[in-house]
Amino acid sequence: MAKVLITSGPTREYLDPVRYLTNASSGRMGRALADAFLAAGHEVYVVSGPVEITYPSGCVVRSVVTTTEMLEAAVEWFAQCDGVIGAAAPCDFRPASLATDKIAKNGGDLFLQLVETPDILATLAEKRQGQWIVGFALETRDGPDKAIGKMRRKHCDMMILNYADAIQSERTHITAFASTGEILGSFAGSKVEAASEICEWIARHLMR
Amino acid sequence: MAKVLITSGPTREYLDPVRYLTNASSGRMGRALADAFLAAGHEVYVVSGPVEITYPSGCVVRSVVTTTEMLEAAVEWFAQCDGVIGAAAPCDFRPASLATDKIAKNGGDLFLQLVETPDILATLAEKRQGQWIVGFALETRDGPDKAIGKMRRKHCDMMILNYADAIQSERTHITAFASTGEILGSFAGSKVEAASEICEWIARHLMR
Repeated sequence: MAKVLITSGPTREYLDPVRYLTNASSGRMGRALADAFLAAGHEVYVVSGPVEITYPSGCVVRSVVTTTEMLEAAVEWFAQCDGVIGAAAPCDFRPASLATDKIAKNGGDLFLQLVETPDILATLAEKRQGQWIVGFALETRDGPDKAIGKMRRKHCDMMILNYADAIQSERTHITAFASTGEILGSFAGSKVEAASEICEWIARHLMR
Repeated sequence: MAKVLITSGPTREYLDPVRYLTNASSGRMGRALADAFLAAGHEVYVVSGPVEITYPSGCVVRSVVTTTEMLEAAVEWFAQCDGVIGAAAPCDFRPASLATDKIAKNGGDLFLQLVETPDILATLAEKRQGQWIVGFALETRDGPDKAIGKMRRKHCDMMILNYADAIQSERTHITAFASTGEILGSFAGSKVEAASEICEWIARHLMR
């Protein structure tokens, strides 16, 4: 049986001690994947941003806040795992600086410089030693093209395309692409059912 | 008995269909206040940003996302209420523009122009017809001075000062200031107990 690393949930990137950039990722897809891989007999390691849901008791969970923290935890565990599924929605941008105190209104506009955060899956791909890597792409336009482009830039073995309506929902609509660009499967339904599909696609195409 | 309006929770200000600015306000203080005022026999109306908690069944709740939506709902209900407690942590800034599609990484920095959102309590103060107005100030430095300054700028009758460690916590540490700047009381403990204190301070000083 395999050791599977799952990243899950959003990350937060603070501009001051109170305010941050984030997204509404709930961790439900990550939880459903953890359940599916545990049910299939695998060991599951979850690195999760701040979420309200709880992960199944059978998996090992590390909680993080920022994208950099998620990357560090993922790199540490990845070395001992057989593969990773990037189901998290980490912030792609963070404020260039963090104000020590809460930024007060001063009657004018505020200009925020955002810098790109490190790419978690691309970093893991550089460090891989035979592990498989499955990514998620959440797109609002030209989904298949963008998902395939992301898969190639991040050197993933499979990319799961989903859409913004999946955020904070119990349901999702996914399409899986192989590294060749070929469509491996497509599914619409609950995240629990979608996770079982993904588990099967990975077992069939990526696990030895 | 009085009709009490409570704003609660955070708001979200989106920069694209996926990403937004927010804070970690949980709505727990607002819920505790709703419970305390219901227990004291008052009618309670809650305007809440996105939260995971549920409000007591005895109150009327309207759910909103942005600061402007919170303001509109609060203005509508304020006209029929005897007073308002601004326990929400609405975003003070919003992106000047909302991108139609998810902003992609392009290898460079992103410059975000943020504009101030309307001030909910100051707007209600302009429209007041005898209602009392209680605000919350969450400060990381020079708390009492900033709380009193905010109370005067927003024309509130009472200001409750709290601190960043109250966010997403069950506990809080509060100090209440009268419009004269006088300290009315101070309390450290659970949000449920703090809400009872606030309810008593309001009954003693602001309700007729």
